[in-house]
Amino acid sequence: MDAIVLHRDHDGPRRTTLPRPEPSTGEALVRTLRVGIDGTDYEVLNGGHGEFPEGQDHLVLGHEAVGVVVDANGTELTEGDVVAPTVRRPTPDGSGREYFERGEADMAPAGTYHERGIVGADGFMAEFFTSPARDLVRVPDRLAEYGFLVEPASISEKALEHAFASRSAFDWSLDSALVLGNGALGLLTLGMLVESVGVERAYCLGRRDRPDPTIDVVEELGATYVDSRTTPVPQIPRRYEPMDLVYEATGYARHGFETVEALAPSGVGALVGVPSPWEFEVDGGALHRDLVLSNKALVGTVNSNVSHFQGAIETLDALPDWLFDAIVTDVVPVDDFERAFTEDESTIKTAIEFSDT
Amino acid sequence: MDAIVLHRDHDGPRRTTLPRPEPSTGEALVRTLRVGIDGTDYEVLNGGHGEFPEGQDHLVLGHEAVGVVVDANGTELTEGDVVAPTVRRPTPDGSGREYFERGEADMAPAGTYHERGIVGADGFMAEFFTSPARDLVRVPDRLAEYGFLVEPASISEKALEHAFASRSAFDWSLDSALVLGNGALGLLTLGMLVESVGVERAYCLGRRDRPDPTIDVVEELGATYVDSRTTPVPQIPRRYEPMDLVYEATGYARHGFETVEALAPSGVGALVGVPSPWEFEVDGGALHRDLVLSNKALVGTVNSNVSHFQGAIETLDALPDWLFDAIVTDVVPVDDFERAFTEDESTIKTAIEFSDT
Repeated sequence: MDAIVLHRDHDGPRRTTLPRPEPSTGEALVRTLRVGIDGTDYEVLNGGHGEFPEGQDHLVLGHEAVGVVVDANGTELTEGDVVAPTVRRPTPDGSGREYFERGEADMAPAGTYHERGIVGADGFMAEFFTSPARDLVRVPDRLAEYGFLVEPASISEKALEHAFASRSAFDWSLDSALVLGNGALGLLTLGMLVESVGVERAYCLGRRDRPDPTIDVVEELGATYVDSRTTPVPQIPRRYEPMDLVYEATGYARHGFETVEALAPSGVGALVGVPSPWEFEVDGGALHRDLVLSNKALVGTVNSNVSHFQGAIETLDALPDWLFDAIVTDVVPVDDFERAFTEDESTIKTAIEFSDT
Repeated sequence: MDAIVLHRDHDGPRRTTLPRPEPSTGEALVRTLRVGIDGTDYEVLNGGHGEFPEGQDHLVLGHEAVGVVVDANGTELTEGDVVAPTVRRPTPDGSGREYFERGEADMAPAGTYHERGIVGADGFMAEFFTSPARDLVRVPDRLAEYGFLVEPASISEKALEHAFASRSAFDWSLDSALVLGNGALGLLTLGMLVESVGVERAYCLGRRDRPDPTIDVVEELGATYVDSRTTPVPQIPRRYEPMDLVYEATGYARHGFETVEALAPSGVGALVGVPSPWEFEVDGGALHRDLVLSNKALVGTVNSNVSHFQGAIETLDALPDWLFDAIVTDVVPVDDFERAFTEDESTIKTAIEFSDT
């Protein structure tokens, strides 16, 4: 079968032929429909993140997938089910066992899991993949085409769940929200906040000139585009308003700290972007003081579990079709896979199509 | 009646005679038993924090009080009730009204409240005080003597409540906890964590040589004393273990950031210390990355409300008498009030006694 892999020489994504996988007990065989590409894939390609599967000279790429069950193999699934796979799997040493057993692999410490398409396990960019049935989440027909957005949406589902939990000990009202980052994840999360959570006043930060398709999406959602070149994050409360929630999706390390300044009293910053080490000066006294005196919180989260996939599916089902069409700027047949890894000003999110429903 | 006040010339605490207050409708008259002294009182004395009541040349000090109702004045209280007063009160402009109405004055933004003995309203260091009955929390007889510890304990009650809430979206287990600061609040919180929350392995950070009464309290509680001069906070996970919870009570700004490094995966830092502005260099990239990839959280909290006072009373009631005796190193009659504001190596917490039960 066709697969898109990265070799250990890191010479970019390559098309190769691999044997069709056989499902083991408890696993189903899935025919891949589409696989999305995100920033993590680029980090893996650049060698900045990830790990090859032990004893393999290549890694099958891709962790945002949707497919159709073609062999339920005695599991609770049914042939024809459209499913999205979660990403984390146990390591052979079983060190993260307790987290997997209680369905919270997303909370497992680094080193106790593999991540398909990222760390130590093949991903989903192939005509077929197998997966334990418990890691496959049913996707309703309406979302089948865009089912590869369930994984990124689940990242935000979890981040928002943890952020809201941190504000659950008192009467908190989420009226204003700021998304830092106008990439696919930022725009999708902005859509979730506006259309599903029902945030009244939403803002999205970017650094693009008009006309720009991401700014169009922000405004079509009724949100306000904030240009970080003219309004740096710490100035947002003065220029716009202080924010009950800030969702940080850029991974720009300074934003993690500036988030505190952008928050309203009792606000929470949800951090999902992953920066690299970088030393810089902060007014740590003022930041620490503000966290305390204004009852603010910063909550970091990574990955997501089956419950977040299920939540994401419900949330995505509340979003309008135009938003999916606007965010997914290119769906590329596998013959043309290289195009999916090129970006220009008009690119927001691309996916590779392996087959159709 | 006798009162201990600070004048606008900031020449230290002074004894003066004031008229006995008359309770308004909804208020009770309370005969003061004891009033504790903490770091905030010193900040007020030094002019670093606080505000004089409008139109007054002095501020009655003290915000950690316990007293006996001597005139219930038609409220739901009964003469003879031992009570501890909460600290925040509405400003005349009513800007924080909604927070007071729902019993969450502790979440009100700065500028929308007064704080008795601190910001814009007289405190409790007087033979009598009045207070709205709804801001007086009944204290059981066993705790009457140490009822002035209810207010500081309520600060930790709230901080822990918010910290635990932030970990409520998943299966979190609190096995290891580190308290930064071996002052009265740090030791009281250590006692709460060990004796009431039931944390298995507790640690307390200080910078004192043995023999030292605070180290004795730490060890009597079965906790481990960590000397920050030999083991800086970021080295604690290697030297001891990573912490599920870090409670930051020093207000040393670097600790707010080092807290993240001391945490175990999925851990939470509860910040209650209040630093001043101070710029310094941090590896902001590594910190931000660690928050995200290890699902960590930082939660700042300030003040407390009636529900936290009630929780604190239950929590304190689970603590052994020796702990109160060890933490409260001096109870000074009002004639001798100046002694309560002096500190040496053996001082942990002092209180002024205005009358006895």
